[in-house]
Amino acid sequence: MTADQARRRFASARVARLATVDEHGRPHLVPIVFVLDGDRVYHAVDHKPKRTTALRRLDNITADARVCVLADEYDDGDWSRLWWVRADGTARVFEGGCDESRSAIALLRDRYAQYRDAPPAGPVVAIDVTRWTGWRAGREREPG
Amino acid sequence: MTADQARRRFASARVARLATVDEHGRPHLVPIVFVLDGDRVYHAVDHKPKRTTALRRLDNITADARVCVLADEYDDGDWSRLWWVRADGTARVFEGGCDESRSAIALLRDRYAQYRDAPPAGPVVAIDVTRWTGWRAGREREPG
Repeated sequence: MTADQARRRFASARVARLATVDEHGRPHLVPIVFVLDGDRVYHAVDHKPKRTTALRRLDNITADARVCVLADEYDDGDWSRLWWVRADGTARVFEGGCDESRSAIALLRDRYAQYRDAPPAGPVVAIDVTRWTGWRAGREREPG
Repeated sequence: MTADQARRRFASARVARLATVDEHGRPHLVPIVFVLDGDRVYHAVDHKPKRTTALRRLDNITADARVCVLADEYDDGDWSRLWWVRADGTARVFEGGCDESRSAIALLRDRYAQYRDAPPAGPVVAIDVTRWTGWRAGREREPG
């Protein structure tokens, strides 16, 4: 699968999983909803985190910007339909109010009906993807 | 969600995502099929990797045993049904032939019909889970 094909498949997914590493180098995972804008993934935290409930994913990105995001399709009845796309990149976190935050949230609200009623109020994560890797069943051996 | 509830939800999932870190501390993700045996997750590589196609996930585990595995449910139409479970743990890789490999592959073949026709031929990954963390929509703020 070419990088462009991988990007297009990724863009079609409704959910992805975000891997970060903490300050000790330990991996951490959460599912995310997202929108793709060119080679940039935007994700927003639903609620404004308080100091006491600071989110691990945000702390991790602040400590180490390197992230990996995976979108995949699983079909329990037909493994010939499986595919996955991995996006490796660099992440930033920023609060609402700036132009980029407003435009990211507008894109997310376009994409997810749930955000039209209740837009995400927390920080935005922007991921600049530097590498797209994809695989689908049947054509090639699974890498990774 | 208690650790026990989290473990039970995880056990019901048909697919999960495995995060490892490479020798430079960079995160890496792949989807996996798996079986849970107590607090141990077993996964097997479908094919025998050759030296030239060594799998990143296996190299990473050899370099750093710390892994994170995530199972989650996404429902595009109803976000009140979302949940996720994260398993933090320590991984080992071993080749076929030993008792543990045989029993892991038997468990995987019990669980996945596709493996009955074509059992996985590659190395087995065993993950000892040291922490179960779970969340479901509607009851509590999302951590992580």
